[in-house]
Amino acid sequence: MAQENLSVVLHSQGDLRLEKRPVPEPGPCDVLVQMHSVGICGSDVHYWQHGRIGDFVVKKPMVLGHEASGRVVKVGSAVTHLKVGDRVAIEPGVPRETDEFFKNGRYNLSPTIFFCATPPDDGNLCRFYKHSANFCYKLPDNVTFEEGALIEPLSVGIHACRRAGVTLGSTVLICGSGPIGLCSLLAAKAMGASQVVITDLFSERLTVAKELGADFQLNVKRGDEPQQLAKSVTDLLGAQPQITIECTGSESSIQTAIYATCSGGVVVLVGLGSEMATVPLVNAAVREVDIRGVFRYCNTWPMAIAMLASGKVNVKPLVTHRFPLEEAVQAFETTRQGVGIKVMLKCDRNDQNP
Amino acid sequence: MAQENLSVVLHSQGDLRLEKRPVPEPGPCDVLVQMHSVGICGSDVHYWQHGRIGDFVVKKPMVLGHEASGRVVKVGSAVTHLKVGDRVAIEPGVPRETDEFFKNGRYNLSPTIFFCATPPDDGNLCRFYKHSANFCYKLPDNVTFEEGALIEPLSVGIHACRRAGVTLGSTVLICGSGPIGLCSLLAAKAMGASQVVITDLFSERLTVAKELGADFQLNVKRGDEPQQLAKSVTDLLGAQPQITIECTGSESSIQTAIYATCSGGVVVLVGLGSEMATVPLVNAAVREVDIRGVFRYCNTWPMAIAMLASGKVNVKPLVTHRFPLEEAVQAFETTRQGVGIKVMLKCDRNDQNP
Amino acid sequence: MAQENLSVVLHSQGDLRLEKRPVPEPGPCDVLVQMHSVGICGSDVHYWQHGRIGDFVVKKPMVLGHEASGRVVKVGSAVTHLKVGDRVAIEPGVPRETDEFFKNGRYNLSPTIFFCATPPDDGNLCRFYKHSANFCYKLPDNVTFEEGALIEPLSVGIHACRRAGVTLGSTVLICGSGPIGLCSLLAAKAMGASQVVITDLFSERLTVAKELGADFQLNVKRGDEPQQLAKSVTDLLGAQPQITIECTGSESSIQTAIYATCSGGVVVLVGLGSEMATVPLVNAAVREVDIRGVFRYCNTWPMAIAMLASGKVNVKPLVTHRFPLEEAVQAFETTRQGVGIKVMLKCDRNDQNP
Amino acid sequence: MAQENLSVVLHSQGDLRLEKRPVPEPGPCDVLVQMHSVGICGSDVHYWQHGRIGDFVVKKPMVLGHEASGRVVKVGSAVTHLKVGDRVAIEPGVPRETDEFFKNGRYNLSPTIFFCATPPDDGNLCRFYKHSANFCYKLPDNVTFEEGALIEPLSVGIHACRRAGVTLGSTVLICGSGPIGLCSLLAAKAMGASQVVITDLFSERLTVAKELGADFQLNVKRGDEPQQLAKSVTDLLGAQPQITIECTGSESSIQTAIYATCSGGVVVLVGLGSEMATVPLVNAAVREVDIRGVFRYCNTWPMAIAMLASGKVNVKPLVTHRFPLEEAVQAFETTRQGVGIKVMLKCDRNDQNP
Ligand SMILES: NC(=O)c1ccc[n+]([C@@H]2O[C@H](COP(=O)([O-])OP(=O)(O)OC[C@H]3O[C@@H](n4cnc5c(N)ncnc54)[C@H](O)[C@@H]3O)[C@@H](O)[C@H]2O)c1
Ligand SMILES: NC(=O)c1ccc[n+]([C@@H]2O[C@H](COP(=O)([O-])OP(=O)(O)OC[C@H]3O[C@@H](n4cnc5c(N)ncnc54)[C@H](O)[C@@H]3O)[C@@H](O)[C@H]2O)c1
Ligand SMILES: NC(=O)c1ccc[n+]([C@@H]2O[C@H](COP(=O)([O-])OP(=O)(O)OC[C@H]3O[C@@H](n4cnc5c(N)ncnc54)[C@H](O)[C@@H]3O)[C@@H](O)[C@H]2O)c1
Ligand SMILES: NC(=O)c1ccc[n+]([C@@H]2O[C@H](COP(=O)([O-])OP(=O)(O)OC[C@H]3O[C@@H](n4cnc5c(N)ncnc54)[C@H](O)[C@@H]3O)[C@@H](O)[C@H]2O)c1
Ligand SMILES: [Zn+2]
Ligand SMILES: [Zn+2]
Ligand SMILES: [Zn+2]
Ligand SMILES: [Zn+2]
Repeated sequence: MAQENLSVVLHSQGDLRLEKRPVPEPGPCDVLVQMHSVGICGSDVHYWQHGRIGDFVVKKPMVLGHEASGRVVKVGSAVTHLKVGDRVAIEPGVPRETDEFFKNGRYNLSPTIFFCATPPDDGNLCRFYKHSANFCYKLPDNVTFEEGALIEPLSVGIHACRRAGVTLGSTVLICGSGPIGLCSLLAAKAMGASQVVITDLFSERLTVAKELGADFQLNVKRGDEPQQLAKSVTDLLGAQPQITIECTGSESSIQTAIYATCSGGVVVLVGLGSEMATVPLVNAAVREVDIRGVFRYCNTWPMAIAMLASGKVNVKPLVTHRFPLEEAVQAFETTRQGVGIKVMLKCDRNDQNP
Repeated sequence: MAQENLSVVLHSQGDLRLEKRPVPEPGPCDVLVQMHSVGICGSDVHYWQHGRIGDFVVKKPMVLGHEASGRVVKVGSAVTHLKVGDRVAIEPGVPRETDEFFKNGRYNLSPTIFFCATPPDDGNLCRFYKHSANFCYKLPDNVTFEEGALIEPLSVGIHACRRAGVTLGSTVLICGSGPIGLCSLLAAKAMGASQVVITDLFSERLTVAKELGADFQLNVKRGDEPQQLAKSVTDLLGAQPQITIECTGSESSIQTAIYATCSGGVVVLVGLGSEMATVPLVNAAVREVDIRGVFRYCNTWPMAIAMLASGKVNVKPLVTHRFPLEEAVQAFETTRQGVGIKVMLKCDRNDQNP
Repeated sequence: MAQENLSVVLHSQGDLRLEKRPVPEPGPCDVLVQMHSVGICGSDVHYWQHGRIGDFVVKKPMVLGHEASGRVVKVGSAVTHLKVGDRVAIEPGVPRETDEFFKNGRYNLSPTIFFCATPPDDGNLCRFYKHSANFCYKLPDNVTFEEGALIEPLSVGIHACRRAGVTLGSTVLICGSGPIGLCSLLAAKAMGASQVVITDLFSERLTVAKELGADFQLNVKRGDEPQQLAKSVTDLLGAQPQITIECTGSESSIQTAIYATCSGGVVVLVGLGSEMATVPLVNAAVREVDIRGVFRYCNTWPMAIAMLASGKVNVKPLVTHRFPLEEAVQAFETTRQGVGIKVMLKCDRNDQNP
Repeated sequence: MAQENLSVVLHSQGDLRLEKRPVPEPGPCDVLVQMHSVGICGSDVHYWQHGRIGDFVVKKPMVLGHEASGRVVKVGSAVTHLKVGDRVAIEPGVPRETDEFFKNGRYNLSPTIFFCATPPDDGNLCRFYKHSANFCYKLPDNVTFEEGALIEPLSVGIHACRRAGVTLGSTVLICGSGPIGLCSLLAAKAMGASQVVITDLFSERLTVAKELGADFQLNVKRGDEPQQLAKSVTDLLGAQPQITIECTGSESSIQTAIYATCSGGVVVLVGLGSEMATVPLVNAAVREVDIRGVFRYCNTWPMAIAMLASGKVNVKPLVTHRFPLEEAVQAFETTRQGVGIKVMLKCDRNDQNP
């Protein structure tokens, strides 16, 4: 395969480069994927801007990107469920060890997991990428590559709603209307939520949320009192929501989440803020409001594909910008500015369709 | 209240009469409801035709009907959450004792529960009916009386899907397209099922199922081999369904349910057939296919109302026939013949709207 | 019943009095209980010392006591499962409304619940007390009155362990060796915990914990670093505990709880401290360590009685002091000083046995 | 390793031979284990007597044995958690594929799983055996090899009790006092069951059950009426058991299990009988008695080791006979005759201790 492999490589904080890398050779259990569509995530931008997220530090050049889909062009000798030509969505986390987490079906918690674009593991914002075949999922014909790439953020929303126990008739508060809040909205509705209130600081994002099915939008202003916001949520719903999915990471929003949720309900923490947070824990404890974290996802791709194929979840409106891979820096700049919702990079020179 | 209380009373097997009964006086925790819409259930017809269902025998005259809604016209002294004029849906099962079942949230299993039109407890196919206020639920303005009455069969579907664990992306087989099968279909779809296969002996019923959202219909013929039918289901879905909701009660269909369901899945038994059934238990056991029963429902009215109010579940197409209360016998005869899906009796002379 | 009803009444902060009250008359669903043994709880002492706990303020004289057992001496007309002479343990929380919490089996969260010795509801530190018969549980002959009274704190431990999901082979950290920490220890061991580490500031309490079955004791000093303590726990167990039950309410101990618990595990908050707490929420969230509150208990008396009757749980060593009801003030003073573990008041002049 | 590898090989129905096989070479992810203790299971005997179990047919010579422990003597290049000299218990089922079952933590249901002594996969009744290191678990010093081997049947009991939801205060009926019924008894008690009734046809087995902690023994006679037996169980417990664990596979015992279990309870099917069974399904369904199968186990070794190490579960009394590997045929004959409970084969010529 005498092909170039243009890749988006972060060398260190602020130093993002487009460079050619060798096309990798798949191992026996891998497939080689010709990348088609890769979404830019807030974490990609964060590594670019700060060179680190928490304990994960970019110490050597790393390819970015982990919201991805493409076409299989080479298949490892031990792979049976995929063949050349298959269109696939890529689950970026691949456990390296068969440890107790993996055996128990919670492989996302395995401390040694490989994860695209989490240092030091390379991501897939490039032309050709090899990945464990077990974590590549065939897309049906009626699911586009971009939908396939969007399964990654949708999976965060699905995992959050699943951990929250969203079910028929659930009333849900979602804090934050970024890509993750919006994906949580889509998942909650598809799982049977009857009413969803969503918040954000920016009215444009709330407008998108409304289009995607949010029943009520709450425009939060910096400095708003959490207990007051909780009351506003109750006023909108006529009762406290049973579930709150926090997708901002801001301390005041976490406080709002706890105050707002009804006794016996659940707050899911998706948003990641500062290490320590000051929160009304006694209020949560004596009302048995559970606080559950979310770390990425596990076991979501099959159900996400099923939902996309059946047309029951529509993620397409999330894509607001598209750039060819060659214009990656511009694409990153667009994401950094917070314009639109999701920016897609088109990695296949011969097919820049959705 | 010098009002007549025309009631549909079953005196004994085959002896169904329309007769006037006194208007009841609500106790301190009751409300008096002027009935509006009451659906006829297969069990009503069964009591009429056979005078019994299992151990429940009609030994003295009993008012029929348990799928009901109406308007509050009198309120007991201790009732605070309802007032005269409120439109309500009636949950027909009211636990009489605070026993361990009730304390644990499974009051439907309480052996001493009161249940409308299960001997010896009177039902609500009449003009005026008193009921425990705690089991009357206020209907929002945008939910019709008939939708309110249909919450009863819908609750069976919800409880079945909840016991089955239907969630995002579930693939579901529903056996039988009677009112209960169709309500299970609506509930399954609302809870996130990606694909539903539904079966029946009659193609007309499958047509209704298709209109209500079933992805695949399977026309079963008497004598079809269960294992062969299971294979047909797999062929339609491309894989075995994760969940089967059995709504026919026929032995061969229960066998199909077990063979069809994928390992680790769930079969829910809603349909009630003969006391003993011969089934492939080892097949279920070694594939850890759980077999879970359903006895009516508990804790479903609030979520059902939430779904109807939000427009996410549409039960209206289920009503195929309407009769004024005065023509109850004709309505029962129509139901007995299996024409259409749900027959509604309109109990309010001044308002026969849906 | 021309009997005196000597009662321990808190008039206001610091004003605890022994006074005679009328013997109450049971309603149709009540029983009248001649009190035998009543344990003093930290909350009783707290009301005495501070006149309030959070939003619950003693505004008028209130009888204290809620860890209680006694003998039925009068039975309401509607009561069928109890008779005069039955020895009973009393569950102090009785829901007043059949609201959604009660219907769903979580009646402890019902906002209008009656609860002994939570203002304004009277407790049962007296000679004669009437209570809802549904919340009085018959004691088998081989369970003593004091064991019956201890079901109350044991229920907190059971509910905590149940919410935590303690099961076979669980490794557990319990923070605090007061009565509640010790009851959690007993419950955890009975539910299958393989190893329990317990902490406290005082070595005497750790000695009791050891006698009750704790595998490891960790003597915490004020100012110890939470992350360092977490490491000590890991060192003792050879791995992080799967479950932590926090029974101190101190902020630093909650921090320890989060750091100590393994990924995918659970922290249960039983201890109640100051309204706001600063905690490492991101650490919990990205490791999916759930934080679950505990508010008293529900549905624990039957299982607790079963365990006591079978001899599988031994609460007897918790009782370190006994006083006749007449010496209640002295008993309260003893509890206030933190001497021993559980102080029992003996309310029956003719039977002061355990 | 110029060592002989004496192995117990089943050539075809009735043709059991002791023969020397080559010592296997471990792959990079394997360890080579010098076998120490291997229990004989009913299935080993069944293959010997009938040449098949259901669809699994012995078509070529197969080494028997799957209840095993030994010492690591060689370590594959990729193995990090084990070293030469480690004493290990062997989990006989090793998934071959990372399919959806494995990803979801239910790898026992993976259709392509490797399983010792299930045709065509060889077992470990031999001197030297290689196995996936990930499914070998280090034994602590205070757990004997025989205890290590007994983790296999204990795992069936643990998995059954876990699927049943045994918890604090559970009342349990166990049908059958063979090794599996007894292991279920041990697991149930360790998980908090307050009272266990156990049945068998043979009083000697009931005597063992009593010694192992069964609260009540019920001697069943062939021809006893299931409903009558169910009543006897209720009489013994004073109420219907919440959980029944069926470990005989006989149709009448499954019927007893359903009739006996209380509404809302669970019947777990461990015993495997004839393909089709005639059972009172309506009785189960309308009382919401769930029927759950058990296929071996998953994720049990760590918790089993924790319990054995803590001394909370004592499996030692299960071993009633020991034979050196050389006398395997005699050992199989003893098992076939149903004498005693568990027969152990001692595979290490230099150490025949427990
Ligand atoms: N736990 C995980 O596995 C996981 C995975 C992906 C993302 N995340 C986190 O989820 C969060 C959301 O991700 P995103 O990509 O949507 O980010 P984003 O920054 O695009 O969206 C966050 C939104 O929250 C809004 N917001 C901020 N403060 C608010 C407040 N006080 N009240 C209401 N709205 C507020 C912002 O205006 C913004 O629209 C981030 O913290 C990210 O780190 C976590
Ligand atoms: N468990 C409960 O609490 C509960 C509550 C309500 C109804 N039910 C039971 O649920 C069942 C369904 O109720 P319904 O009102 O819909 O009844 P129904 O008779 O109207 O519908 C049953 C449908 O099943 C079809 N059918 C029969 N045999 C079939 C087979 N072998 N394969 C495929 N389809 C077959 C029939 O053609 C019919 O359309 C009944 O058995 C009823 O007793 C149970
Ligand atoms: N959530 C509920 O429903 C509920 C019910 C009962 C009690 N409680 C709460 O549970 C807690 C325990 O109750 P109790 O009766 O056992 O109280 P207690 O005061 O007798 O016991 C608390 C123990 O924690 C120890 N401790 C304090 N700080 C510590 C630290 N940093 N590290 C280790 N140990 C520390 C103390 O020495 C003491 O022995 C209290 O906060 C009480 O309010 C809650
Ligand atoms: N599901 C699984 O993964 C799994 C795993 C292991 C064993 N099993 C099955 O579990 C069952 C028990 O295994 P085991 O090794 O203990 O077998 P076993 O034959 O030693 O024990 C069965 C016991 O049941 C008794 N019994 C038979 N009929 C009875 C009846 N009607 N009432 C009461 N007792 C009766 C017998 O006397 C015998 O003691 C077998 O059917 C076996 O195939 C299943
Ligand atoms: Zn991302
Ligand atoms: Zn009905
Ligand atoms: Zn207390
Ligand atoms: Zn075995």
